[in-house]
Amino acid sequence: MLVVMNQNATEEQIQNVARVIESKGFISRISVGEIRTVISAIGTKHIDERDFELLSGVAEVIKLKTNYKLTAREFQNEDTIVEVNGVKFGGKYTGLIAGPCAVESYDQVDKTAEELKKSNLKILRGGAYKPRTSPYAFQGMGEEGLKILRSVADNHGMAIATEIMDISQIEKFMKYVDIFQVGARNMQNFNLLKELGKIHKPVILKRGLSSTYEEWLMSAEYIMSGGNGQIILCERGIRTFETYTRNTLDLAAIPVIKKLSHLPIIVDPSHGTGLRDKVEPMSRAAIAAGCDGLIIEVHYNPDCAMCDGAQSLYPSQYDALYNEIKQIAPIVGKEIL
Amino acid sequence: MLVVMNQNATEEQIQNVARVIESKGFISRISVGEIRTVISAIGTKHIDERDFELLSGVAEVIKLKTNYKLTAREFQNEDTIVEVNGVKFGGKYTGLIAGPCAVESYDQVDKTAEELKKSNLKILRGGAYKPRTSPYAFQGMGEEGLKILRSVADNHGMAIATEIMDISQIEKFMKYVDIFQVGARNMQNFNLLKELGKIHKPVILKRGLSSTYEEWLMSAEYIMSGGNGQIILCERGIRTFETYTRNTLDLAAIPVIKKLSHLPIIVDPSHGTGLRDKVEPMSRAAIAAGCDGLIIEVHYNPDCAMCDGAQSLYPSQYDALYNEIKQIAPIVGKEIL
Amino acid sequence: MLVVMNQNATEEQIQNVARVIESKGFISRISVGEIRTVISAIGTKHIDERDFELLSGVAEVIKLKTNYKLTAREFQNEDTIVEVNGVKFGGKYTGLIAGPCAVESYDQVDKTAEELKKSNLKILRGGAYKPRTSPYAFQGMGEEGLKILRSVADNHGMAIATEIMDISQIEKFMKYVDIFQVGARNMQNFNLLKELGKIHKPVILKRGLSSTYEEWLMSAEYIMSGGNGQIILCERGIRTFETYTRNTLDLAAIPVIKKLSHLPIIVDPSHGTGLRDKVEPMSRAAIAAGCDGLIIEVHYNPDCAMCDGAQSLYPSQYDALYNEIKQIAPIVGKEIL
Amino acid sequence: MLVVMNQNATEEQIQNVARVIESKGFISRISVGEIRTVISAIGTKHIDERDFELLSGVAEVIKLKTNYKLTAREFQNEDTIVEVNGVKFGGKYTGLIAGPCAVESYDQVDKTAEELKKSNLKILRGGAYKPRTSPYAFQGMGEEGLKILRSVADNHGMAIATEIMDISQIEKFMKYVDIFQVGARNMQNFNLLKELGKIHKPVILKRGLSSTYEEWLMSAEYIMSGGNGQIILCERGIRTFETYTRNTLDLAAIPVIKKLSHLPIIVDPSHGTGLRDKVEPMSRAAIAAGCDGLIIEVHYNPDCAMCDGAQSLYPSQYDALYNEIKQIAPIVGKEIL
Repeated sequence: MLVVMNQNATEEQIQNVARVIESKGFISRISVGEIRTVISAIGTKHIDERDFELLSGVAEVIKLKTNYKLTAREFQNEDTIVEVNGVKFGGKYTGLIAGPCAVESYDQVDKTAEELKKSNLKILRGGAYKPRTSPYAFQGMGEEGLKILRSVADNHGMAIATEIMDISQIEKFMKYVDIFQVGARNMQNFNLLKELGKIHKPVILKRGLSSTYEEWLMSAEYIMSGGNGQIILCERGIRTFETYTRNTLDLAAIPVIKKLSHLPIIVDPSHGTGLRDKVEPMSRAAIAAGCDGLIIEVHYNPDCAMCDGAQSLYPSQYDALYNEIKQIAPIVGKEIL
Repeated sequence: MLVVMNQNATEEQIQNVARVIESKGFISRISVGEIRTVISAIGTKHIDERDFELLSGVAEVIKLKTNYKLTAREFQNEDTIVEVNGVKFGGKYTGLIAGPCAVESYDQVDKTAEELKKSNLKILRGGAYKPRTSPYAFQGMGEEGLKILRSVADNHGMAIATEIMDISQIEKFMKYVDIFQVGARNMQNFNLLKELGKIHKPVILKRGLSSTYEEWLMSAEYIMSGGNGQIILCERGIRTFETYTRNTLDLAAIPVIKKLSHLPIIVDPSHGTGLRDKVEPMSRAAIAAGCDGLIIEVHYNPDCAMCDGAQSLYPSQYDALYNEIKQIAPIVGKEIL
Repeated sequence: MLVVMNQNATEEQIQNVARVIESKGFISRISVGEIRTVISAIGTKHIDERDFELLSGVAEVIKLKTNYKLTAREFQNEDTIVEVNGVKFGGKYTGLIAGPCAVESYDQVDKTAEELKKSNLKILRGGAYKPRTSPYAFQGMGEEGLKILRSVADNHGMAIATEIMDISQIEKFMKYVDIFQVGARNMQNFNLLKELGKIHKPVILKRGLSSTYEEWLMSAEYIMSGGNGQIILCERGIRTFETYTRNTLDLAAIPVIKKLSHLPIIVDPSHGTGLRDKVEPMSRAAIAAGCDGLIIEVHYNPDCAMCDGAQSLYPSQYDALYNEIKQIAPIVGKEIL
Repeated sequence: MLVVMNQNATEEQIQNVARVIESKGFISRISVGEIRTVISAIGTKHIDERDFELLSGVAEVIKLKTNYKLTAREFQNEDTIVEVNGVKFGGKYTGLIAGPCAVESYDQVDKTAEELKKSNLKILRGGAYKPRTSPYAFQGMGEEGLKILRSVADNHGMAIATEIMDISQIEKFMKYVDIFQVGARNMQNFNLLKELGKIHKPVILKRGLSSTYEEWLMSAEYIMSGGNGQIILCERGIRTFETYTRNTLDLAAIPVIKKLSHLPIIVDPSHGTGLRDKVEPMSRAAIAAGCDGLIIEVHYNPDCAMCDGAQSLYPSQYDALYNEIKQIAPIVGKEIL
């Protein structure tokens, strides 16, 4: 932390700030400039910079951002590569995940998986527990849905990714699920993150609706500091003043996160835009920006989907998209299997 | 839901939209204007308006906002009044809650409560489980903290309000806590909300960092539809582009929520601004805007607080503020005990 | 500016950053911490901190916010008080401005002014040139509108405040107008600001829809550095994700600006909320937060207003509000004439 | 406009709304649903929907978005193609514009142009008038800068695009400039837009920092309704809570605008991200999303740039990028000359 003093701060005020810094267990270092004095607090503890903003003579308090993060590229320079069912996310690899928004029936998941298999899909997505804004909306099939996913995936040689909403579901998930997905609304459900730090399965951590890059990485830090380093970050759009699209898909997150962290980052263009005809251009854009994977909603018959049909691709659209992105990936030095 | 057709939509396109509406279990009604045709979908089921945006000939799809909500003023016209330990929130009553951000020790809570008692405080706040952005920050004292709160409150004839973070904590909370507080990060932790619908204790539901009024009320609806109507909404600032204050305290939420809902709404100026010297003006402003209560962080010695000391008032400041707002409340037709 | 180096930055990288700083005409100062090295750039020129973010070994570059601003409280400690027609804004004084959104006719302005005179109004507002989102909406009466305002104001012993949209209008405005108002959309119309720095009349500078406090003060700096220090800042709501209200009125701007600057700050609750029934509570809230004035839309018959009728008060509502805020102001140490 | 009544609205309230609609010169049409009644206002005048929100019995008022816009795809189905110096924007064509942020000297512009010519560049950008947040920052070379741009461009067979800040500059610009650029801060400088509607040169209209798609198109409507249809829309990033990048580049604007309007849309990744190493991935992403062009900051020696050097590419980086996007464009059905 750095405390910048007012131009006209007195020597006494400067000494007082230094004293408070030391009283919190830090070393203080005073650097006198021509115009202003800056005091640094050095140490490894957590500090609340606002404690200093109200001291007399202080102009500004500055928090240094990256401190001892396991998820930081400073800590580990080479890319983390997460591998599931032969699909790799990270490094030069771009992985694909697709499937319906919600599990509705065995038949629906099976038909969708069968179609996606033709496009070489290896990881199937589908929601068994659905976080819905309204208590009156379809809440998902629960454990029955997990069983359907497992059974369909096994039949087609696929792995599965599905959303976990609560600690109480972990045991069930361990039986059926290959990749645990944490939704945007749970990105700061810290109790859940702590528990996911103890398992040995990959976790997709979606970015919160209004979470900064730093908060997102700090949430990943909860999982990683628990011992689980198999984390895939997922950009899925943030909330802005623009309401035409469901969210504003922030593709700059790709180069930013790749600079700050060694973890792979994938993109969810389905939630990121909320409309089928925007999913294709934004998927291509994400690949061109160098992302490590995509997670896309596909339904064998979106018009009859119980949930988010409007943002689900038809299987034929997914196949066309798959062919486009396979051409774009090598241009940016990436490989799609 | 209303589907507005393009000016040049064909009769066939119009009939197709009507057909799709009926296939989803709704009644369709076509209203032909001079320039555009509008088709309404009538029925009580949940509908995804985006399913219609991609149909040919459609210009715009409009979702009607308020549908059958227990929390809506349309449903219940008179104000809900929540009463705890003789303090009332709602109607003409304005209730006050104060105390430290986090429980740090018996001594700290006791000294703070003793000071606040002089300002006639009846409900003590304090966090035993703390949701922190960083896994390396102080995470709270847990059950030990709950016991301290209970014991201090009993000694001073106070009730307690404290934050619950997870379903697994409900049983413990039932033993010690009078008001369950749901934090901003958990506003859409739907599993937790469902469980809180089954208890018979008041719940403070904080607004999410980037949640709309409608989403907030829908989260309250989760609790109320479970059978628990003792809900206090709490505005605590939203996330905007302005980073000078910790959040942007949206005081217009007060008149808006009071129009849309019968539930009481209180304000948290401590998290809403994040800086002690902004807490007082914003508390007065909230009272002048007609809020039903305040929840304020006070510490007997903020300079030594383990968490959020910078936004905690000194007891003497709280007392001065208490005297100011007691004068403002009657001007706007409210009463502070 | 401060450049924070990576933990593992080499001595060569550190020296290179220092070299680049000096090559831009600054003095560099290296401060070696236990963990990180911080390099300060000292000097009075403008610097683009991003020039340093891409240098090898750099973790973070920090811009210091307040530098040599005429508008800063560091520069002038006592409050600036702007006085017009006996009404004072700033210090312990709270001034009031009211009137219709747009000038529609002599009769309309006159009737409104007559009503407002009963509530002791001394400064009349009204738009002659209207910035409208759509080219097909009413664009204002132009110079004819200015003449009407002047004539009505003279008859009632009032001063006038009205919006200027373009440099080409300055000459006309000098003839008729007492207070020049710069709208939110023109807050960064720097050519206009420069010209307003040369006149000797008070300027109301509205905050831009998505402008930070710092940008707002920098725009005031354009006017003040030109020689005109009679500036009144006006908070009128910012754009956020919440669309229920027209804008999100950021009342925390009041204590923040008062800390950062000596300039008076007033509030426009009419544009800030966009709905008449929210104007009253938010006006009271602004006063309770300690603002230096209000600018409120009032129409003698809002139902027939050509523009923004929905956010205009009836004269009787204004009078009731006037009586309420006169009671609140003294509680917070302010005086309304 | 549609007025949705409360479930329990009385017949009298319904009739009153209809009466007010007709009194404003519209035809009203009442549509009685099982649960709610909806009243439509039909007509071509501008209407303020908030005038109805406060009437008794009204639940919600809904504004229909697209009304008689010249810029709408409903009005003109085929893509507008803007051609300058043999470069086409729109339809299947993707045009490129590049050059320094600011004109600093003849030498600087000439060296940059010479480098860019190797990458086949036909349209040079460069700012002679610079809108700067601070009055103390470099404000541009003015007319001298325009002359330099013209002279260099002529020598290299290039056209020029540069930013206009004020009506008073139009005459000068007509002499020197091929494409008039309206900056984000001037997107709602309506007086300027009106004047640009009268000229016969292409206009690049940048999206405002916090402007919705609809407001952006309405600003284009100001130009087009004046008679100038040669408009190129330019997405350059919006302001959000995330401050790591200078702005959040909203690439979904590409497919959205292409659906709503026939006008070409280009992307400015330099302002959109603010950091050189993010410009390349976001440029590729924009092309993959199907944009009609890019405008990129390039400086022959960014380290010495007077302004925005940190977001300017080196000529060699531009050339590498040019080669990548030439490969991506045909995959999405576009052609780069």
